[in-house]
Amino acid sequence: MKMPKVLFKMMESFEKLPGVGPKSAQRLSFYILRMPQSEVESLASNLLEVKKSILYCEHCRNLDEVSPCSICENPLRVKNLLLVVTSPMDVFSFEKVGFKGQYFVLHGNIDPLNNVGPDEIKIPSLIKRIKQLAEETSFLEIVLATSTSLEGEATAMYISKLVKEEDSINSRVKLSRIARGIPVGGDVEYVDDVTLSRALEGRSQF
Amino acid sequence: MKMPKVLFKMMESFEKLPGVGPKSAQRLSFYILRMPQSEVESLASNLLEVKKSILYCEHCRNLDEVSPCSICENPLRVKNLLLVVTSPMDVFSFEKVGFKGQYFVLHGNIDPLNNVGPDEIKIPSLIKRIKQLAEETSFLEIVLATSTSLEGEATAMYISKLVKEEDSINSRVKLSRIARGIPVGGDVEYVDDVTLSRALEGRSQF
Repeated sequence: MKMPKVLFKMMESFEKLPGVGPKSAQRLSFYILRMPQSEVESLASNLLEVKKSILYCEHCRNLDEVSPCSICENPLRVKNLLLVVTSPMDVFSFEKVGFKGQYFVLHGNIDPLNNVGPDEIKIPSLIKRIKQLAEETSFLEIVLATSTSLEGEATAMYISKLVKEEDSINSRVKLSRIARGIPVGGDVEYVDDVTLSRALEGRSQF
Repeated sequence: MKMPKVLFKMMESFEKLPGVGPKSAQRLSFYILRMPQSEVESLASNLLEVKKSILYCEHCRNLDEVSPCSICENPLRVKNLLLVVTSPMDVFSFEKVGFKGQYFVLHGNIDPLNNVGPDEIKIPSLIKRIKQLAEETSFLEIVLATSTSLEGEATAMYISKLVKEEDSINSRVKLSRIARGIPVGGDVEYVDDVTLSRALEGRSQF
């Protein structure tokens, strides 16, 4: 017996998603068969809908249904604080903790081994955005909140170098890097060496 | 900033799938945004297609695009050997190792704690199928290959009891249970006690 062709195609589609291997694809496909028709229909229509109506914001490259996005368009937000993040998910995380400034979303880190250079993560657009914000405000703080992986650190270093070289803005710009240290609730005992030395370096006064 | 509504609905849809929590749903949703349009479209259409065109076989309750399914309709397959399995995935597994008889798919095990009784897994249809096959052939072997979990064992016991009580067929039917033992390539050292004692009980002669 061959597997029914539609079922096979379903599995192939699922296997293209991140973290879904052949076994999970099989499990998901059989689950779809047992799901109520209405739920499958709404899953399918949401897939098409999300793809159609989500755009990159022209200012910050965050994802929204409109461009400029609702954050860039919000007049109540602080204009002279720019947070540079790796992914749109990070935006949601920072929003949850009440960050009130501007964002720029890189959608990745510089990663030469995977052919991701500064242009792929739109560093030129970031520099343009920085200049634009620096012009609008008298003083701009840029917080580099890229991931703390090797690639994230390299990306942050690269951006800071570029910004410092921009003579037109570097007197009005302050650069900082998000703190690396011991997670709150974490035990010092279980923290790795690099994090621990970073936590010590980045100590703050009582 | 609120999350765009379409994105939120997308995550909700993904969260309904088995093994997908809030974090994975978020990751999948953002991945969809980066996927080529054509792949998203084919994922969506496959979802609807698989749901529309896959049926339960009227004889064996396996899944196929036609009913009776291609296995039940195949005249070359052995008629007097019936394998009772828990899920359609098991059918594919047994097909891969070259099983040539008939199947019956229960789509679950008896599980009173989750309100799954004999009727939910269509035991009456199984008994009907057994009678039908026993009539067509002079002698029928039924191999109970339900899972080796507590529920699977209970389901196998229940089926064997029912079959033995059916006076019209029990002289022409032989019941067996799939072997439980040490997985091939497995180390005796790492096998749990229950499996080990089953492996000893089920020893075969050289």
